[in-house]
Amino acid sequence: MAITVSPLAPKHVPLMPPVAGVKLATAAAGIRYAGRTDVLLALFDKGTAVAGVLTRSKCPSAPVDWCRARIKAGKAQALVVNSGNANAFTGKNGRAATKLTADIAAQAIGCKPGDIFLASTGVIGEPLDARKFSGVMDGLIASATEERWLDAAHAIMTTDTFPKVATATAKIGAATVTINGIAKGAGMIAPDMATMLSFIFTDAPIAAGALQALLKEGVTDTFNAVTIDGDTSTSDTLLAFATGAAAACGAPKISRAADPRLKNFRMSFNAVLANLAEQVARDGEGARKLVEVIVEGAVSKHSARRIALSIANSPLVKTAIAGEDANWGRVVMAVGKAGEPANRDRLAIWFGGIRVAHQGERDPSYDEAAISAVMKKPEISLKVSLGLGRGRDRVLTCDLTKEYIAINSDYRS
Amino acid sequence: MAITVSPLAPKHVPLMPPVAGVKLATAAAGIRYAGRTDVLLALFDKGTAVAGVLTRSKCPSAPVDWCRARIKAGKAQALVVNSGNANAFTGKNGRAATKLTADIAAQAIGCKPGDIFLASTGVIGEPLDARKFSGVMDGLIASATEERWLDAAHAIMTTDTFPKVATATAKIGAATVTINGIAKGAGMIAPDMATMLSFIFTDAPIAAGALQALLKEGVTDTFNAVTIDGDTSTSDTLLAFATGAAAACGAPKISRAADPRLKNFRMSFNAVLANLAEQVARDGEGARKLVEVIVEGAVSKHSARRIALSIANSPLVKTAIAGEDANWGRVVMAVGKAGEPANRDRLAIWFGGIRVAHQGERDPSYDEAAISAVMKKPEISLKVSLGLGRGRDRVLTCDLTKEYIAINSDYRS
Repeated sequence: MAITVSPLAPKHVPLMPPVAGVKLATAAAGIRYAGRTDVLLALFDKGTAVAGVLTRSKCPSAPVDWCRARIKAGKAQALVVNSGNANAFTGKNGRAATKLTADIAAQAIGCKPGDIFLASTGVIGEPLDARKFSGVMDGLIASATEERWLDAAHAIMTTDTFPKVATATAKIGAATVTINGIAKGAGMIAPDMATMLSFIFTDAPIAAGALQALLKEGVTDTFNAVTIDGDTSTSDTLLAFATGAAAACGAPKISRAADPRLKNFRMSFNAVLANLAEQVARDGEGARKLVEVIVEGAVSKHSARRIALSIANSPLVKTAIAGEDANWGRVVMAVGKAGEPANRDRLAIWFGGIRVAHQGERDPSYDEAAISAVMKKPEISLKVSLGLGRGRDRVLTCDLTKEYIAINSDYRS
Repeated sequence: MAITVSPLAPKHVPLMPPVAGVKLATAAAGIRYAGRTDVLLALFDKGTAVAGVLTRSKCPSAPVDWCRARIKAGKAQALVVNSGNANAFTGKNGRAATKLTADIAAQAIGCKPGDIFLASTGVIGEPLDARKFSGVMDGLIASATEERWLDAAHAIMTTDTFPKVATATAKIGAATVTINGIAKGAGMIAPDMATMLSFIFTDAPIAAGALQALLKEGVTDTFNAVTIDGDTSTSDTLLAFATGAAAACGAPKISRAADPRLKNFRMSFNAVLANLAEQVARDGEGARKLVEVIVEGAVSKHSARRIALSIANSPLVKTAIAGEDANWGRVVMAVGKAGEPANRDRLAIWFGGIRVAHQGERDPSYDEAAISAVMKKPEISLKVSLGLGRGRDRVLTCDLTKEYIAINSDYRS
């Protein structure tokens, strides 16, 4: 199947600066795909802190189990990611494959296997032949450099149509630190987590516990506010690595997430998460429209989130948007089925800033031609006001097109 | 858009016998569609009992509000149903339209407006011009006969590709009673309720309270165990009418659902509900495969239901089935995201009776050719065993095809 780049892909790729203490390399290990890279190795300076947020699936992949067991120790020396095979639902063989991968990397690097972090994405239920990593590991280590960010994002793609990278700088005290991130998404995307794989790298000297708190706080309105198809992956993994190398340039060591010196860092860190999460929505399988769903006037933020997700996950709302139809009747349906407090006769609905319904019925003044122009745009904002309270939330999604069906009825075969 | 009959449609339509005390008529009132009937009138003998199960949507349609307010009184003289316009999210005008419809019918029949039951299906958010009913009402009453069951099922269709009827007889004491049902479904189908509109008619002399209990009990494993797209309608309405006319043939009057004389009736009544619910799944928008999802070994029936619905509503599972791919990895994903107790390493999965996975990994003995033959069939049975307890449940759904997208991106325009 020929994959063309999503029409919603960002027009520009940022120039990714190095992150002191991080080196990257990619290789083609032949895991599943021919003629492309499928392994990413990230090498970290000694003393690198790690934090992670992992899928809540009750049937997680073997690498998710591996990472979950090792995040508490808070130390990382390397990250090994492969695409093409998720090493999920692979039983004892899957566990053995994670151990073998970590052993191969640890031996080549000269560290403990427990300091190697792992992630796999791709087909579920097929055994992963981890011996393939031994053929490429020495070459990866030898070729690792500070520059390969776009290559790294490429190597972890599955049905993604473009590599996802983001970067920001932040001040901690007088020092400037860098935050780089990469992600892959496409299908099987829903909270929690919203992306299958994403990795954030910074040279800021932030202790593991503080990094974990920042990450957990940051995902709420970013990765956990994106849904493509309501399907939560067995493999969803978001890891953050802080090398601490910026301490050499005067950045103070931070041990608590509540430290006021993190104010600017937190903003930049969340901006990188938000940027990557939006790119995931922009590359939803078959997506032709980026859809922002805003719910306000709910009884709480939690209630607003549930209603927003009910709208964003509704096949009927998503197909209407694919058909450029401002079908607010289906939005009413999705509000009604969410199970959250709602009063039909107080509902108001806007598409692209044009109010199409208020007080429980069609807005008599709305203009079909104006709304039709709004619906032709590649980015659609859909707002619902419930008129009950002050709860507000926002989620991102995309439309549901025939291409989604084509991609997903063909993927395994 | 040309609609062709679903390949999953039943091969035979049952011959529908009369139900003593029920007369039917249909007309073309020009609500929305040209060149087809869009109004159904059912007239009942005096003393007819009514029961109903209605959508749990927080944004119900005006006719749903109307019926909910009148079911407790338990008496019905007529039912008026229109297709083409759901009279949902129509504010004060919607309430006025229900009142006007009931007034028009009550005046023509010579009964109280409160004894008229109403249902509407079609587009949401467009005003319903109830004056159109006055032009056809006298003709409907004059032409009503005991025979028009298939016509009745036709008049309430929207995107359905075939009319849905079912019939059964039952013994109550020495007397034989008849149970007829009609339904329309297609899209926006999920618990609770699973169908947009369905009406059941019997001549059995069953009091309203007992009928209500029977209906509530009956929907659990029938209409509430069907999902097409996870979207619950604002209009879902299931009404049951018992004329009591069979009392003249010796059927005893039944006042309690626990009456042991209802044993055979209950079976037949549930069979009619199950038959109609299955027809709704067979006519899911764009459906090419009827999919039965069985979950066993869960900690409870409730837990099994939630896991079965998570599988049945997963776009990735449904598109894989559309692609004739026994993608059990996606089934694992759907089990994992349900939030219910599950142990990955005890999971077993079957497609069409062939075990493809057990003990948390691929079944080494499964044969790709055999599974491929199973997946080509129009009816697919997907079974998951959790190995945790004795909870078991079954839901019906269909695959997710490009035709679903085509139908739903075009519907309003």
